[in-house]
Amino acid sequence: MGKRELYTSMGLGIDMALEAHDIVRGDTGQEIPGVRMDKKTYPNAEVSIIGIMDKSAEAMMGKPVGTYITIDAPEIRQNNKQVHNEIAEVLAEQLSSMLKIGPDDSVLLVGLGNWNATPDALGPRVINYTLVTRHLKKYAPQDLSGGLRSVSALAPGVLGITGIETAEIIRGVVEKTQPNLIIAIDALAAQNTERIATSIQLADTGIAPGSGIGNQRMGINRETMGVPVIAIGVPTVVNAAVIAQGTLDRFLQQLANNPALGQNAGSFNPIILENIIKEVLGPYKTNLMVTPKEIDDLIEAIGKIISGGISIALHPSVDPEEFHMYLH
Amino acid sequence: MGKRELYTSMGLGIDMALEAHDIVRGDTGQEIPGVRMDKKTYPNAEVSIIGIMDKSAEAMMGKPVGTYITIDAPEIRQNNKQVHNEIAEVLAEQLSSMLKIGPDDSVLLVGLGNWNATPDALGPRVINYTLVTRHLKKYAPQDLSGGLRSVSALAPGVLGITGIETAEIIRGVVEKTQPNLIIAIDALAAQNTERIATSIQLADTGIAPGSGIGNQRMGINRETMGVPVIAIGVPTVVNAAVIAQGTLDRFLQQLANNPALGQNAGSFNPIILENIIKEVLGPYKTNLMVTPKEIDDLIEAIGKIISGGISIALHPSVDPEEFHMYLH
Amino acid sequence: MGKRELYTSMGLGIDMALEAHDIVRGDTGQEIPGVRMDKKTYPNAEVSIIGIMDKSAEAMMGKPVGTYITIDAPEIRQNNKQVHNEIAEVLAEQLSSMLKIGPDDSVLLVGLGNWNATPDALGPRVINYTLVTRHLKKYAPQDLSGGLRSVSALAPGVLGITGIETAEIIRGVVEKTQPNLIIAIDALAAQNTERIATSIQLADTGIAPGSGIGNQRMGINRETMGVPVIAIGVPTVVNAAVIAQGTLDRFLQQLANNPALGQNAGSFNPIILENIIKEVLGPYKTNLMVTPKEIDDLIEAIGKIISGGISIALHPSVDPEEFHMYLH
Amino acid sequence: MGKRELYTSMGLGIDMALEAHDIVRGDTGQEIPGVRMDKKTYPNAEVSIIGIMDKSAEAMMGKPVGTYITIDAPEIRQNNKQVHNEIAEVLAEQLSSMLKIGPDDSVLLVGLGNWNATPDALGPRVINYTLVTRHLKKYAPQDLSGGLRSVSALAPGVLGITGIETAEIIRGVVEKTQPNLIIAIDALAAQNTERIATSIQLADTGIAPGSGIGNQRMGINRETMGVPVIAIGVPTVVNAAVIAQGTLDRFLQQLANNPALGQNAGSFNPIILENIIKEVLGPYKTNLMVTPKEIDDLIEAIGKIISGGISIALHPSVDPEEFHMYLH
Repeated sequence: MGKRELYTSMGLGIDMALEAHDIVRGDTGQEIPGVRMDKKTYPNAEVSIIGIMDKSAEAMMGKPVGTYITIDAPEIRQNNKQVHNEIAEVLAEQLSSMLKIGPDDSVLLVGLGNWNATPDALGPRVINYTLVTRHLKKYAPQDLSGGLRSVSALAPGVLGITGIETAEIIRGVVEKTQPNLIIAIDALAAQNTERIATSIQLADTGIAPGSGIGNQRMGINRETMGVPVIAIGVPTVVNAAVIAQGTLDRFLQQLANNPALGQNAGSFNPIILENIIKEVLGPYKTNLMVTPKEIDDLIEAIGKIISGGISIALHPSVDPEEFHMYLH
Repeated sequence: MGKRELYTSMGLGIDMALEAHDIVRGDTGQEIPGVRMDKKTYPNAEVSIIGIMDKSAEAMMGKPVGTYITIDAPEIRQNNKQVHNEIAEVLAEQLSSMLKIGPDDSVLLVGLGNWNATPDALGPRVINYTLVTRHLKKYAPQDLSGGLRSVSALAPGVLGITGIETAEIIRGVVEKTQPNLIIAIDALAAQNTERIATSIQLADTGIAPGSGIGNQRMGINRETMGVPVIAIGVPTVVNAAVIAQGTLDRFLQQLANNPALGQNAGSFNPIILENIIKEVLGPYKTNLMVTPKEIDDLIEAIGKIISGGISIALHPSVDPEEFHMYLH
Repeated sequence: MGKRELYTSMGLGIDMALEAHDIVRGDTGQEIPGVRMDKKTYPNAEVSIIGIMDKSAEAMMGKPVGTYITIDAPEIRQNNKQVHNEIAEVLAEQLSSMLKIGPDDSVLLVGLGNWNATPDALGPRVINYTLVTRHLKKYAPQDLSGGLRSVSALAPGVLGITGIETAEIIRGVVEKTQPNLIIAIDALAAQNTERIATSIQLADTGIAPGSGIGNQRMGINRETMGVPVIAIGVPTVVNAAVIAQGTLDRFLQQLANNPALGQNAGSFNPIILENIIKEVLGPYKTNLMVTPKEIDDLIEAIGKIISGGISIALHPSVDPEEFHMYLH
Repeated sequence: MGKRELYTSMGLGIDMALEAHDIVRGDTGQEIPGVRMDKKTYPNAEVSIIGIMDKSAEAMMGKPVGTYITIDAPEIRQNNKQVHNEIAEVLAEQLSSMLKIGPDDSVLLVGLGNWNATPDALGPRVINYTLVTRHLKKYAPQDLSGGLRSVSALAPGVLGITGIETAEIIRGVVEKTQPNLIIAIDALAAQNTERIATSIQLADTGIAPGSGIGNQRMGINRETMGVPVIAIGVPTVVNAAVIAQGTLDRFLQQLANNPALGQNAGSFNPIILENIIKEVLGPYKTNLMVTPKEIDDLIEAIGKIISGGISIALHPSVDPEEFHMYLH
């Protein structure tokens, strides 16, 4: 049983396209038809651009047709503001490459997630850090808002706090305020603890149903919203099931490498492996999250980088220095 | 110049109908035509019910036609949970008298105000304490939600955080979720520091434009929302201008009572008084707020009382004890 | 290699005596000489009392001679305040059994841990919930403090925030205020996710160097403080290494049970197992923590239970109802 | 009755030496014997240095003999980080002029005040922003801490939270850790709302008993601590009594300027004035605080300025740029 089948059987998704790509390629051993991948290297960041180009690739990857950009920047952990600023500019550059809007188009930022749960609170935090301008454009004299795009922001909460599907709240606000684009910020789960609060995924597909830590029931995408949606996702946890699965994987590999011990290991019933993982997880099942000790500090840092990168991309006529100063 | 004229000239509103009533009556010296007032006494609370019955009364009171119930419960300051529970039940009783909904009607709670500013954060806090049930009614088996009314909740933020008129956000959500009633919770400014976090005003008129600490630009009422709106307001500040004005008032009264000193005091130019107040307030003008030192604790206490009282009123078939236990 | 040796090699401690007992017994297969264990069952809690009676038992258990009481109360997760109150009373009863102080003796509560890191913040939170009385006994009239024991409280912070060994800060305050007993509250790591925020360990030995999530360098015990120290510890995380180790353990057991596959599995080099775990953990090593999604709510609940239980035990002449009301 | 007598009678202190100087000079109409005042102007700040040189000046000013430096920087409200950095450097320069320590001397920062009450939380917040180094100097290799002075930090809490005199806690820690200097950060009350979160007072006298918002009972100064204490105070509130008094003052001046109205106003019984103020304040008495609406944001800004300025002054061999980057 491959990793993806196991996850599906346990009700676990793979949030990051880059990781799904690795897993699917790992299973098949070759490039996936209908998928294209490019890489670009920056001094403090590695950028991977995955294009899912047709329906068969969509089915294999478990991700809708579209473009997925991943910025891997482990240097974020060093807590050096100069580096943080550089990564915000990489984010701005990549985000700009996805923006298909004119200078007068307006943007609604949506911070998904539960503000009361540390690793799920990234979205609402970015909203708190963000400079909104829509009211200035609407109510203030020209000179206050000159050169600024109209940006509004919403932290809609989660189903358990509001009793309302998050997508319904956003759709209601979209109908009233008519933005030309939505940028939705969400916390994700990664496969690898090194990615926690150091990777950023941009997707021009919006957010699929059931993804993110908060597991949106309805998608937040062009189909449900009526306008394009760019999703910005940052992994803030690894599911404990992934740790357990990764341990088994490595052990089975050891057995495979050492025929004296494990000549029959390949024949292990996948049900047994799944049961071992379930036993280890106990009653919380797939609701157990793995985070580094310093997760609160890491989320503050990446939240400011996201907020800064978005502002630089949305207001290209403003000197990026301005946003660096205000956002740190 | 009467107090009301002075406030109008300074751009200050009078949030509580009971205080507006006192001021208008104080100016005229007699009951206001078209206004009715009843009183009811509870062991730990005094309830005043003001009816504004016609347009002329509306003009004099500066409040729309409707019913305004004020619960004055200074005992809240004593931090005795038994007393808090009793006041939550008084609130539930008074709120129930305003509810004109059937057992299957749904309710949307809206917590107005800025979650980042302590005295304005009452509304969002009540939302955080509240038990929402709409998603249970919709997605969960009957036995989980049996006997519970459908309640949803929203903390929309303020213009400076979202760039969107709060009323627009709520209107969008109302159109999507079709509640039968809105209950909007807001922080108010009082005339008297004794009322801070110890008085609760219920109004079946909703929220008028420009009222509350956050000064909503658009009203949140039946006209703008399409469904009835009950406003629950709690004063959490007194404007510093009120302190300055109250000081002058009392001094002028002393002069009036002592003809030897102040035979001409009545002839004081109201402009001079207004200028004195402006000088005392300095550059913050009417943005200076007076709060007791323990305001953080007081807002937590009254927030739980409001949340408890609303739940008791909305779910009449549940034992109030349940809500007391869960809300403290 | 047994679990304990593996942990030692990775620099991981076993915080809970009950779990150390299980592990050591598991390795040896029989009761440990010099260790005594009693059990007591309550409606919503299971209490285990372990006595480590001599130096040889101390060496085997890796815990100093003394008494360790564990209250396992998985019902805490149900969020039923009635149950929480009952568990607070079980805690009070067990804590009382450890208290060797007269009615006029004074107590210093110490909330260990980092208030900025959610799972390590339990200690400081308990301090915030606690009713302190020392200043009333000292400065207020008799009738305000009558029947109350002198209780003071300190949240000293952690080395990374203060630059000072926590034990040094406490020792300084002890010398100035001369309490007769210290009760130190700390967040622990468990072996089993079911214990997170649902188990409470009391130890009359105080806190050993290097234990707890914050890894105190110096012990906080009678030797370093000069007065008896009771430690109250609550697991709020499981180390991710434990998840990885538990997965391997279960897999090896499967191999052992199925000779056709694993006849040689017993001969696995323990170094290989340790390396697998290290690979899975990645650069964060043993700084990866596993918590359930709802950890913020769970810590609030257990924090109030701890605070309530301590107050009931320290002020036996006050009706426990009082503390239940004030602490929820 | 002068302002100072009125305050004394109401139990109100004057926290800022510069304001006490104004009031005393205002009463007497001339320079105070034994007091010296110098001014220095910076691009974004006005610095006033008051020397209280003998016991008679101490009695008139109500402040111990010593040097009091006030930095008035109203530009802080503009939220321009460049300006904030400049003011942090002015603070560093002024603080350096007070430091009488050698390069190897160690410093203990103490953040006074209640972390649960927004306007009193300035001290603990500065501690949270501060870079501590004492543990690096003690436990880490030379190259990690080279060029850094040993700095430790403490947020001891307030009497109502700990039950212990704050000065006792600090004294205990001082005896254990033997710093060469204490810098104590505290929130103050001002006479003028313009000073809120925009003025900084440095005093080489430490903190006198009964001063600051939290009203320390015992002084925190060389006498009680055994080492020199520099106090850094920032006004975060104005007492509502000051607003009331200021209103009366201005009104009486108007009367004095207009003999036709107020020829006898000077003969007003001061008791009457005090009673008016007490009536306006109501049951909270002098516990009513005036703050601007945006106080939460202002305290965050000034907290970072204080933290940055202290770090620049204490680590003169580090480029100030470093601290600007890390502290914003």
